[in-house]
Amino acid sequence: MFEPVTMDKIVSLSRRRGFVFPSSEIYGGLGSTYDYGHYGVLMKNAIRSEWLRSMVQERDDIVALDSAIILNPRVWEASGHVAGFTDPLVDCRTCKLRFRADKLEDSQCGRKPSKRPGEASDCDLTEPRQFNLMFETQVGAMQDASSTAYLRPETAQGIFINFKNVSQLARRKPPFGIAQVGKSFRNEITPGNFLFRVREFEQMEMEFFVPPDQAERWYEYWIAERLRWHKSLGLRDESLRVREHDAEERSHYSSGTSDIEYLYPIGWQELEGVANRGNFDLSQHTEFSGTKLEWVEQDGNRYTPHVIEPAVSIERIFVALLCDAYDEEVVGERDRTVLHLSPRVAPVKAAILPLIPRDEGMATRARALYEELRRFHSVEHDESGQIGKRYRRQDEIGTPWAFTVDEQTIEDETVTVRDRDSLAQERLPIGGVRAWLDDALAREWHPPARS
Amino acid sequence: MFEPVTMDKIVSLSRRRGFVFPSSEIYGGLGSTYDYGHYGVLMKNAIRSEWLRSMVQERDDIVALDSAIILNPRVWEASGHVAGFTDPLVDCRTCKLRFRADKLEDSQCGRKPSKRPGEASDCDLTEPRQFNLMFETQVGAMQDASSTAYLRPETAQGIFINFKNVSQLARRKPPFGIAQVGKSFRNEITPGNFLFRVREFEQMEMEFFVPPDQAERWYEYWIAERLRWHKSLGLRDESLRVREHDAEERSHYSSGTSDIEYLYPIGWQELEGVANRGNFDLSQHTEFSGTKLEWVEQDGNRYTPHVIEPAVSIERIFVALLCDAYDEEVVGERDRTVLHLSPRVAPVKAAILPLIPRDEGMATRARALYEELRRFHSVEHDESGQIGKRYRRQDEIGTPWAFTVDEQTIEDETVTVRDRDSLAQERLPIGGVRAWLDDALAREWHPPARS
Repeated sequence: MFEPVTMDKIVSLSRRRGFVFPSSEIYGGLGSTYDYGHYGVLMKNAIRSEWLRSMVQERDDIVALDSAIILNPRVWEASGHVAGFTDPLVDCRTCKLRFRADKLEDSQCGRKPSKRPGEASDCDLTEPRQFNLMFETQVGAMQDASSTAYLRPETAQGIFINFKNVSQLARRKPPFGIAQVGKSFRNEITPGNFLFRVREFEQMEMEFFVPPDQAERWYEYWIAERLRWHKSLGLRDESLRVREHDAEERSHYSSGTSDIEYLYPIGWQELEGVANRGNFDLSQHTEFSGTKLEWVEQDGNRYTPHVIEPAVSIERIFVALLCDAYDEEVVGERDRTVLHLSPRVAPVKAAILPLIPRDEGMATRARALYEELRRFHSVEHDESGQIGKRYRRQDEIGTPWAFTVDEQTIEDETVTVRDRDSLAQERLPIGGVRAWLDDALAREWHPPARS
Repeated sequence: MFEPVTMDKIVSLSRRRGFVFPSSEIYGGLGSTYDYGHYGVLMKNAIRSEWLRSMVQERDDIVALDSAIILNPRVWEASGHVAGFTDPLVDCRTCKLRFRADKLEDSQCGRKPSKRPGEASDCDLTEPRQFNLMFETQVGAMQDASSTAYLRPETAQGIFINFKNVSQLARRKPPFGIAQVGKSFRNEITPGNFLFRVREFEQMEMEFFVPPDQAERWYEYWIAERLRWHKSLGLRDESLRVREHDAEERSHYSSGTSDIEYLYPIGWQELEGVANRGNFDLSQHTEFSGTKLEWVEQDGNRYTPHVIEPAVSIERIFVALLCDAYDEEVVGERDRTVLHLSPRVAPVKAAILPLIPRDEGMATRARALYEELRRFHSVEHDESGQIGKRYRRQDEIGTPWAFTVDEQTIEDETVTVRDRDSLAQERLPIGGVRAWLDDALAREWHPPARS
């Protein structure tokens, strides 16, 4: 029977197979910072390129942008981040540590911790004060207040400040969108939960500019469209839901925000947020910069567009995909751990395996097939160990298909293709493998029923 | 006759067509910081993916890594950056500005500038002091020395500190490499020259770990291989050269460094550096971390691998490609500006144009062809303006082919394909366009002779 995967198992697989592991380990790490290994990079690249394909390449109403990480600091005054992007902190007079005032139940005084778990520690706390979550730095040779700048805490503002020139350059009129992928940084006081709350993360944000009277319609459209997209990546219906924020939860300027939530091992959590930001951002930047960020129609009618924003981080999709795909199965006489990843996001699309690597006929053919396929796809050649062990190694990283060159290949130039999910094997001509793989990758994919 | 392009023309085209433009413009900019528009993003993505394809996908001796931007600060002590990644600065006692002591000829006192151009200004300068080029920030809630961290000034160190776990996880032995693409940051005192010296840039670095006695051979190999790669992107032979650093120019630990230089409008400049870094980095991190970063062979023999590093930034390739591709030609009765970009790096691979957009038959067929092609490639549908104007618009962004749906298409279901470089037009069946484009993109490409 299927048992929900634990976060520990995901962390352990990620580390064991080099998807992602704690950063700077030889120096004792650095808080909740992670480095991505080979398969992690391939999978992140696939997620990023699927997002760009659906947001930019396959649409003609959205263009791409890549704005700088360190922007003019006035941007963050206009956006409200300098004044308001804060967490309340308290100091402990006993141990001198700092804690989040709104998360005191998770905190323990460093010198007088509570004796019993779950009980508040014996802290002597100051009144809360506001702590800004933006990383600060100094730009240029003068190290004073005038040189203070920030690492962006979101990519969105880089889009808003470019609204005017992009809309002119791209010859687009509302409704149209600007999409951006890139790193953002937040100095989280209590990072943790694997990749959930990390200090640097990769956002994929799209700001969709619409006439005010179309805002509600497009807000609904983007909730549905993003939900559809996550399902198209293979996430199961029953692990996804849409939750609308109530009035208290959402930003003061937002007239509607919905989270697409995923049922992670730690419970329902935000996977992607879709917000109706109104005209708040463009109005703020108009006020602070003195440049009118508005849309002028051919008849002279002008308005400040409203903005619908679907915003997601690669990290949250990455974890959701691993959790959704993870399974431990009993196959024949042995267990296997398998990732039932959609071929579109699997780090390796196919493995090419010579059954008996020391057999020159098999080795040569397998190598040639590998060298043909790798020109077009991320594929792997593996000649190390028993064939069963090699299959399991590929199952564990989610490789959808394995092509095996065996004795019969020498006779009739066919290979077997093994399906990761069904474990079915069939033979096909070695010359037809490339076309077979192209077709297989283009097919729609649905996750198998859970074991 | 061909005239070498000026940097001004590249800057102007980049701005006009939205490849890249000054960042935070509505707030008066921020030093030499740039934002990339739609075509710039598409082109950068193409460059990045060509690099990853040649470095990772098409090789089995190199794996990918994506390490954090903010690493444990001890990393930068071990690497020598905290102590030595500096420029000498002097203060002017008159105007209080700071200048680079080694670039005083470019500096002018803010209050007593020289009267004649080229003449030193009347500065009253302090003795030089060393200024570190790493951006500093504070991580976590405690804002003191213990929380100081740096934005990485290079991606390479994130690779070195992961040598041990990556070599184990990836089941590779020397010679093997680890490749990484990502942002790096340098607090340049005098940024400038368009994208040449910017404070944030995207590096593509590969560290190749080899047995010490193979270092020289691999150093030569990587110089040749990287030169070949730049030519494969379409850069002309005569604009590329290899220049070996003399002993004074290279880092103290390097036993050989060569620049692959490109003839930019500002002269021969580094496009990519290939360095034989010896065992300096792994030895330093072994010493500072206490973790042995060495290779142990099956017979127990152990050594610290030497490292060959080809390192390049996307920005420098981006500018080289634009300069190499730029041409102003007289075609028929009108001039055109054209980018002869290799199809592999062109932001848009093909344009689909209905000759008469208000003709429903043409409009429908063009739209259907566009929707078919965009599933696989970056293509553009343009129905705005005279056909000649649309061709020129595509020429200027380097689109290699345009498919035009015209009267004859309605009769015989063929379209014309127009070649950007030769301007030749031929007809082909509309149903065969996708296969034609796939083939065309897979062909080797050479830049046309200059006009």
